[in-house]
Amino acid sequence: MPETDLMTLLTGDAAIAALFTDAAWLARIAEVEAALSLAAGDAGVVDAALARQAAAFVEGFQPDMDTLRRAMVQDGLPVPDYVRQLKAAADRVLRPALHVGATSQDILDTATVLVLRGLNDRFVGEITALIAALDDLATRQGQQPLMGRTRMQAALPITAGDRLAAWRAPLPRHLERLAQLRPRLELVQYGGPVGLRGGPEKRAEGDAIADALADRLGLHRAPSQWHSARDGIAEYAGWLSLVTGATGKIGQDIALMAQMGEIGLSGGGTSSAMPHKQNPVGAETLMTLARDNAGQLSLMHQALLHEQERSGAAWVLEWLALPRMLQATARSLSLCTDLITRVQRIGAA
Amino acid sequence: MPETDLMTLLTGDAAIAALFTDAAWLARIAEVEAALSLAAGDAGVVDAALARQAAAFVEGFQPDMDTLRRAMVQDGLPVPDYVRQLKAAADRVLRPALHVGATSQDILDTATVLVLRGLNDRFVGEITALIAALDDLATRQGQQPLMGRTRMQAALPITAGDRLAAWRAPLPRHLERLAQLRPRLELVQYGGPVGLRGGPEKRAEGDAIADALADRLGLHRAPSQWHSARDGIAEYAGWLSLVTGATGKIGQDIALMAQMGEIGLSGGGTSSAMPHKQNPVGAETLMTLARDNAGQLSLMHQALLHEQERSGAAWVLEWLALPRMLQATARSLSLCTDLITRVQRIGAA
Amino acid sequence: MPETDLMTLLTGDAAIAALFTDAAWLARIAEVEAALSLAAGDAGVVDAALARQAAAFVEGFQPDMDTLRRAMVQDGLPVPDYVRQLKAAADRVLRPALHVGATSQDILDTATVLVLRGLNDRFVGEITALIAALDDLATRQGQQPLMGRTRMQAALPITAGDRLAAWRAPLPRHLERLAQLRPRLELVQYGGPVGLRGGPEKRAEGDAIADALADRLGLHRAPSQWHSARDGIAEYAGWLSLVTGATGKIGQDIALMAQMGEIGLSGGGTSSAMPHKQNPVGAETLMTLARDNAGQLSLMHQALLHEQERSGAAWVLEWLALPRMLQATARSLSLCTDLITRVQRIGAA
Amino acid sequence: MPETDLMTLLTGDAAIAALFTDAAWLARIAEVEAALSLAAGDAGVVDAALARQAAAFVEGFQPDMDTLRRAMVQDGLPVPDYVRQLKAAADRVLRPALHVGATSQDILDTATVLVLRGLNDRFVGEITALIAALDDLATRQGQQPLMGRTRMQAALPITAGDRLAAWRAPLPRHLERLAQLRPRLELVQYGGPVGLRGGPEKRAEGDAIADALADRLGLHRAPSQWHSARDGIAEYAGWLSLVTGATGKIGQDIALMAQMGEIGLSGGGTSSAMPHKQNPVGAETLMTLARDNAGQLSLMHQALLHEQERSGAAWVLEWLALPRMLQATARSLSLCTDLITRVQRIGAA
Repeated sequence: MPETDLMTLLTGDAAIAALFTDAAWLARIAEVEAALSLAAGDAGVVDAALARQAAAFVEGFQPDMDTLRRAMVQDGLPVPDYVRQLKAAADRVLRPALHVGATSQDILDTATVLVLRGLNDRFVGEITALIAALDDLATRQGQQPLMGRTRMQAALPITAGDRLAAWRAPLPRHLERLAQLRPRLELVQYGGPVGLRGGPEKRAEGDAIADALADRLGLHRAPSQWHSARDGIAEYAGWLSLVTGATGKIGQDIALMAQMGEIGLSGGGTSSAMPHKQNPVGAETLMTLARDNAGQLSLMHQALLHEQERSGAAWVLEWLALPRMLQATARSLSLCTDLITRVQRIGAA
Repeated sequence: MPETDLMTLLTGDAAIAALFTDAAWLARIAEVEAALSLAAGDAGVVDAALARQAAAFVEGFQPDMDTLRRAMVQDGLPVPDYVRQLKAAADRVLRPALHVGATSQDILDTATVLVLRGLNDRFVGEITALIAALDDLATRQGQQPLMGRTRMQAALPITAGDRLAAWRAPLPRHLERLAQLRPRLELVQYGGPVGLRGGPEKRAEGDAIADALADRLGLHRAPSQWHSARDGIAEYAGWLSLVTGATGKIGQDIALMAQMGEIGLSGGGTSSAMPHKQNPVGAETLMTLARDNAGQLSLMHQALLHEQERSGAAWVLEWLALPRMLQATARSLSLCTDLITRVQRIGAA
Repeated sequence: MPETDLMTLLTGDAAIAALFTDAAWLARIAEVEAALSLAAGDAGVVDAALARQAAAFVEGFQPDMDTLRRAMVQDGLPVPDYVRQLKAAADRVLRPALHVGATSQDILDTATVLVLRGLNDRFVGEITALIAALDDLATRQGQQPLMGRTRMQAALPITAGDRLAAWRAPLPRHLERLAQLRPRLELVQYGGPVGLRGGPEKRAEGDAIADALADRLGLHRAPSQWHSARDGIAEYAGWLSLVTGATGKIGQDIALMAQMGEIGLSGGGTSSAMPHKQNPVGAETLMTLARDNAGQLSLMHQALLHEQERSGAAWVLEWLALPRMLQATARSLSLCTDLITRVQRIGAA
Repeated sequence: MPETDLMTLLTGDAAIAALFTDAAWLARIAEVEAALSLAAGDAGVVDAALARQAAAFVEGFQPDMDTLRRAMVQDGLPVPDYVRQLKAAADRVLRPALHVGATSQDILDTATVLVLRGLNDRFVGEITALIAALDDLATRQGQQPLMGRTRMQAALPITAGDRLAAWRAPLPRHLERLAQLRPRLELVQYGGPVGLRGGPEKRAEGDAIADALADRLGLHRAPSQWHSARDGIAEYAGWLSLVTGATGKIGQDIALMAQMGEIGLSGGGTSSAMPHKQNPVGAETLMTLARDNAGQLSLMHQALLHEQERSGAAWVLEWLALPRMLQATARSLSLCTDLITRVQRIGAA
């Protein structure tokens, strides 16, 4: 049943899936290219009126998809052909105000960061909602007796509230971590072909464009490009996996509790062969997604070994691993809150 | 640029992507359910004429997708609701001939194996084609001098043919491995709810259905189910990653050779900033896909820890990792052969 | 050549290896047990004079190693037998002041954190030293011309200083990250058998002991135990792998530069067959260690799925992965600084 | 408690640890170098009597360890300095019969394969013993009723024998796989500096030495070297992880059964805080080791990307991952058989 639309219902997230369509990505690319034209105007590198015209042209431009598809395979990314088409379609006078001083990776990394910034706002909301759901459950059921279990054995009595507190504990720390890392992640990317922002003579211009681009897009300024310094994005992947580690632990505990009759959930899964069964599908899925994220994380760290000024191989490895991590994390948070909300009884069977 | 249709052009495989649509999976599920009805007839468990009627009914049945989608989230897989709909729509007399003695995992694992069998035939063809392309290049350019390099340093002169021979060496072994593992992988799955094929009293009937189902589908017979014994599929994942290890090594060598002018390729990638560059995009992509497969492989082995008679959590982890491995492998093989075919010069710059 | 003492010279770190001997660990365990006795005195749970006597007894106690070894296999950790021996050897009056309210995991996690705190001080020093070495090299050679390379191809000219700046960029961020995470990592662990610090009636006493223990050992206080909430240690593992990602990228670039004659190092490796070669052994080792850490990291995140109140399986997985990560990180930092210091020429061949 | 001698008692294997000491490795290196001298005699490349003298000299030679240690860091492996010392100590007339045509990797890979061949014989014995233990338990307790559990929920009654059969099922397949892969793994390595076995003019001589060396050591002949074609060793790593996947599944099931009182074991672990508990330490350790092997496996596959004729970086990554996998596998097999033997009751509580 892998990777079909039905599968996405279980392990994916529709809103995130919608971010990763061609149309959505081309819209993000256009957003960055338009902001770049304006930023070049802000920085005084091109005439401000021309910059506005160029930005408007970018916003209205629709690339030919067939050409783009053919170029994708050859170039390994769509930006070169997109820019080629854009410049070919633009009035000659606009061309100096398009893609000013940029390389493809500037555009795609900045577009990625824009996506991540939006998701991070969402993740903050969802972690907060999960904390609230756990608190609510603790209020309702926290006094219920529960057998404390260590090393897979009954140990000593605790309460449901004790276990709920253990589930909750990492979540405020995850919010703290995210707040600390966002300024290292939500950074404008702007370096040009070999990362010099125009090189020794034009460095001040390049810095001014970079800062203006950051300001236009509401991103953090970056004192220099980070084409090959991927620590921000790898750290972020670690954060995603820490979050699903927390929800995966909750899922695993719920699956174990379900097995021993220590929890009652409304709306469990059904079986094609055994109508009496109530499978803890959501709890299992949280385990699956946590283990998957732990595996993808190693790839994001393998991808830290970018070669020289810019890598193709390591960079594309990020593209394979990160979207799946985002979906796993988003799905885990919504699923976990849903699961906690559906707990009818926790503790003594 | 992650996971969009454009991205699939680079790192995916269209034919495999087409196997992982809802429609394709539901067709496979129907194929297995229909064969199961016939197999129950073959085994004498249901009347043969009834079995044929049931199979025909399955083949013509279209489930309601809205109901299926809702059930997917609750059940964690589509089969329970599919069977529910199927039986509800069927004439009462046909029902005993539908989904006979099966559990959802029987249907999905067998459907998966059908997909893999088809792909394996394809992989054999593509590895053979890659060997032929390497042989052809060796014939054309094998005598060219090349600097042998060890530990990232020039060592002693070799020929292009020497390096091509090293690239080729693992490929016949991969064919041998695949031939050896296919009987452990391309197995019918049939066990019923807890894997007993009907249990002590009806075991002979269950075995007969299993064998008939295997025969109907052209799969290997299995003396018992393998619901929680996932070694066949994990071994296969290892094979996929061995294959991309071979193509990834070729890609890495080509990227290094391109850097030093030791190879000339027709049709390299272009840059949005530097029109003079010819990026070895295909070669880099081979490295990316090999590293990705190596990471996914660890998840397929984490998934060996299926709990008890059947696991939800570990099983779904397979669904996340395996399709991506199949695409990476298929894409690597076609890309590598294409790349070798496009070599215009290998050896002395 | 695996895992021998010779191998440790290449990929390990002698100082860290010395921390992971039986003797060193038993000394740490004694340090924690002695501090715990004193903390129980500080908290007024046992008489202060008795607490001092008990701490002194712990400090002088030598367990019987044969018994400990036998118990290790059965118990899965040495603390239960150590405490058994300790109490048996102690005067009856001291026993209430020994291992007060603790469980084995309290002792081992706190001992681990003590080790990590010491290493973190060292890592700060070593990252600072690496930054200084890079700055020194930039001062000496930063103006040298170098070919900028993107996607494994010559792109446009840069200077050696540009590349050195890219290598340096993540390092101050790593210092910032470490400073932010240390309060989440260097925490006392104290919870008792099921994590309740004595339970509802004695919770205030338990909290007082925990705080006093933290103060005695110079660790951060923890409002509650973190037996099953392993986010602090998994986050830390991510940090270790970010650090080796930075040194691994430097190593990879140096290996590539060595291949193209863009760098000159004093004291490279030799070959048994080709006396003329100078292998960039240190650079390769940095790549190896970075890839290894990226792999171990996924295990530290798999280990986030601790079952219930305390896990045996997931906890021991941390013990397998973390020491190797510490050694890889320590070795990478010293090796990288050594390598940078040995650069005689960087840039134009 | 990481990586100390005590830790090795839990998760390691003493016999394998003993194979990975400096002394043991130097003995293996000497064994290969001596056999190589004799093989050069067999092949008629050096005088047979001289070859015998040289072999005898190698066998009696003790390298200076201080020099070797210093060279290790510089060379990244001990062979170059070992050979330097060997040749310096040898009578001038013997030198042409020492290390004939070999490169360091020839010696170390062949030494590794010798170790693996011995271990494989042991693994066959241990898997066979585990099968026997499971069969014995099935005979004793197979008729006991047990609740079949699917997706972490009680499903339908089965017997203990049914579950034991599921545990046993992969083991004969593992023996079959090992038999199939041994000819691809237990191969002599002999290629010389750039893998040409003496090059075009002397290839016949090189092949003759390679074959004689294989024969002398009882290894499979190899038609050419496999310096950069690591599929044999990566495939083998996959096999190790398949084996621990099988024992890890058994361990996980036993831990779950212990939690629900479905199994009785003699000699479980104890707790420092709760004397009444019997922790299923061995079962948990099987889970830990299986998850660890799954993680290491991805590194062995990352290491498939050997650069050019011979890699330093990827090769050393094998050295880090493989010994740990061997220990995990050996320990898992002995532990699992011990655990099965200690089952006093399986099935109905």
